[in-house]
Amino acid sequence: MSQQSWQKLVEWPLFIAAVLFLAAYSWEVIGDLHGPEAVFAESVIWGTWALFALDYVVNLALAEDRPRWFVRHLLDLAVVVLPVLRPLRLLRVVTILTVIGRTAGAMLRGKVILYAAGASVLLVYVAALAVLDAERGNGGSIESFGEGLWWAFVTITTVGYGDFFPVTPTGQLVAVGVMVGGIALIGVVTGTLASWIVERVSETNEAEQVATKAHIDTLTEEIRALREEIRQRA
Amino acid sequence: MSQQSWQKLVEWPLFIAAVLFLAAYSWEVIGDLHGPEAVFAESVIWGTWALFALDYVVNLALAEDRPRWFVRHLLDLAVVVLPVLRPLRLLRVVTILTVIGRTAGAMLRGKVILYAAGASVLLVYVAALAVLDAERGNGGSIESFGEGLWWAFVTITTVGYGDFFPVTPTGQLVAVGVMVGGIALIGVVTGTLASWIVERVSETNEAEQVATKAHIDTLTEEIRALREEIRQRA
Amino acid sequence: MSQQSWQKLVEWPLFIAAVLFLAAYSWEVIGDLHGPEAVFAESVIWGTWALFALDYVVNLALAEDRPRWFVRHLLDLAVVVLPVLRPLRLLRVVTILTVIGRTAGAMLRGKVILYAAGASVLLVYVAALAVLDAERGNGGSIESFGEGLWWAFVTITTVGYGDFFPVTPTGQLVAVGVMVGGIALIGVVTGTLASWIVERVSETNEAEQVATKAHIDTLTEEIRALREEIRQRA
Amino acid sequence: MSQQSWQKLVEWPLFIAAVLFLAAYSWEVIGDLHGPEAVFAESVIWGTWALFALDYVVNLALAEDRPRWFVRHLLDLAVVVLPVLRPLRLLRVVTILTVIGRTAGAMLRGKVILYAAGASVLLVYVAALAVLDAERGNGGSIESFGEGLWWAFVTITTVGYGDFFPVTPTGQLVAVGVMVGGIALIGVVTGTLASWIVERVSETNEAEQVATKAHIDTLTEEIRALREEIRQRA
Repeated sequence: MSQQSWQKLVEWPLFIAAVLFLAAYSWEVIGDLHGPEAVFAESVIWGTWALFALDYVVNLALAEDRPRWFVRHLLDLAVVVLPVLRPLRLLRVVTILTVIGRTAGAMLRGKVILYAAGASVLLVYVAALAVLDAERGNGGSIESFGEGLWWAFVTITTVGYGDFFPVTPTGQLVAVGVMVGGIALIGVVTGTLASWIVERVSETNEAEQVATKAHIDTLTEEIRALREEIRQRA
Repeated sequence: MSQQSWQKLVEWPLFIAAVLFLAAYSWEVIGDLHGPEAVFAESVIWGTWALFALDYVVNLALAEDRPRWFVRHLLDLAVVVLPVLRPLRLLRVVTILTVIGRTAGAMLRGKVILYAAGASVLLVYVAALAVLDAERGNGGSIESFGEGLWWAFVTITTVGYGDFFPVTPTGQLVAVGVMVGGIALIGVVTGTLASWIVERVSETNEAEQVATKAHIDTLTEEIRALREEIRQRA
Repeated sequence: MSQQSWQKLVEWPLFIAAVLFLAAYSWEVIGDLHGPEAVFAESVIWGTWALFALDYVVNLALAEDRPRWFVRHLLDLAVVVLPVLRPLRLLRVVTILTVIGRTAGAMLRGKVILYAAGASVLLVYVAALAVLDAERGNGGSIESFGEGLWWAFVTITTVGYGDFFPVTPTGQLVAVGVMVGGIALIGVVTGTLASWIVERVSETNEAEQVATKAHIDTLTEEIRALREEIRQRA
Repeated sequence: MSQQSWQKLVEWPLFIAAVLFLAAYSWEVIGDLHGPEAVFAESVIWGTWALFALDYVVNLALAEDRPRWFVRHLLDLAVVVLPVLRPLRLLRVVTILTVIGRTAGAMLRGKVILYAAGASVLLVYVAALAVLDAERGNGGSIESFGEGLWWAFVTITTVGYGDFFPVTPTGQLVAVGVMVGGIALIGVVTGTLASWIVERVSETNEAEQVATKAHIDTLTEEIRALREEIRQRA
């Protein structure tokens, strides 16, 4: 069995596992669960973990150039073998984005914006969960999911009022992820708007439009017609 | 009656209703009205609400593909049926921007900047109103219109000192809107400057100018002349 | 005398007046002057004010389309007739930038960056002066020029720690100017880097280079040679 | 001996000296050394300083146009003659970046991103060291390396919560460097994404692709074939 066919096979199961994991983790963190409910949520979380670990092992076994695959997927390894880093487990949610991105096909400008917006909302939600999990009861100021959401929005947009901020190392690690996401978000929004403005400006004056392949094709047709004419006259 | 002709008909009445609404709401919030004056301001606000609700219903009735129109205008629905979300009512002011944008015609670079600047100023004003309405008397730090304006400027530019920040859920919802507006604002400014710099740089060295449709047209003329010459000689 | 020749005549005197004004104002604010020294500094400030007022009046008198010039230079009017807005007087310093920009000639990418860097440094210096002038002794936290400079840097880069922030309306007006400058600064840096990266990327693969006027010129030469050949054979 | 051959000769020794310097400085600052260990670390730091000073002197001696070289390398001079500015010594680490950049060869988009990411991580690390060195024991809030790292991340992404900020002039100088680095970082990320989006958008519609040198070459081939044909028929 090739690596491609395995990846195709597990694409949707992994997607569903990631959604299940997100649901169980959300329930556990937001509900601040204890007793049998916490045990159940934890079971789901560890079950999806097992699926991701299995996927990692099978991928490694099937890879054509195993050392190269290993080096290029160190992040995947970290996510699988470091479940002590509780918030990092949320990186599995990236699977959701990958699947959505693949079905999106060609990347038109509108889709880039939609994808960036979707990824930002998912990042804010996941970061609010992770920071709440890390900070609650550890002396930080973030004590409810609402506060976590508010903190994540204030951070991803790089506003940073300072009314809430993480104080635990895990929470600060989550924050760095959100900040980097914020920079990328600004980059995507800006880049898309820039490409749109450049196009809009060039449209207003036809003679100053950038020459496109269509223009060159017209020219080539002209030359071919000339050639044909010479051939007939000769 | 088609949907287009209805929209054309109500364009200006809706614009005036939005301006009236903004004036009445500003008066009510900044003046912190009570008694008969508050009743009058509220009457104007609900009157304009009725006009927007009517517009929504007529649009839905006239739409060619009703389910599709419904799905694509969920925001309009939310604005109409959730008047309990007081600050969200300010979204009606978007009507003002739409009308201005339509009369602007083709989007030249200067107009993009002017439009972005105008939209930012309107956003700051509206956000200051909405946050003051939500926060005043609810334990927040924003207690006057001046403080609201200052907070909106600090937030839209993503500076975020943290001297003022919303603490109520409604106020935080307004803040998220302002932050998203700030990111878009940075994007528009950056994109416009980038397109201007790219153009300026290419102008300084004529031979390295990007080929335009005008250049291709010159070339095509050259080939046509050649064809004509061959024809005459044959 | 035409408006152009007047503007050419007073370009350098106004530049020197702006530098003198900046020096006197810096001395007065940083030194926290009282007594005869303050009187002297104020005299220089009012002397340069007189020169700018004279320039405004002469420009208005010489303008071909007076009402249009008036509408387009409302900012100049505000600076001249509102000397009560002490910090706004610093807008005169814009004259320095205009002169430097004019001598810079064609705007190459390196010059855009240099100009933006210079304007940013000037803005930081001027904002530190203006905010100190507005805040000192009015209950704000900015009490020394060093604190003003630090505050201006933290604000123009949109970091906004919140350790210092203006509390007076005038100081907040200055802050809004610095924030807008910060957004423009990010835009210029980003735009210049984007245009550089686009160029660099296209250089790495020659066949994928964007077609330039030079390429089109080569092609035109080819066609002219063909025409010449046909003429000689006929 | 020419300046080029000298620079080639000392490229790797300087790189190793910069790494050694960074290691010794890190050890001294993070370990808060005293006694013989501090003496040893300081010796390494001064030893590498001597190497950089030597490099400066030899470069100045070998330069073809000595005054021009002097003016263009004022920063190098400052770093060499101002070892009192302890944090500025870290500028030597720029040598590491130069060497990495040179071996990177042509700047493809992926490499620009990798380089920017690497430079940002190095900047964060170095800034955390420098700010800790400047602030510890001087009444500031940054008292451990972890806090320094957290502060540097919060600053370079322009979030600026305000939970930690420098209060000494040296620390604030370091902060300004980090902020400027943050602006440049946003610029590089945005510019790269913009160039990628522009390319991606143009790929989706082949006829609207920008004309490239490859297209022009195809056209030129067409004309040459025509010319050849005419020659053979004549």
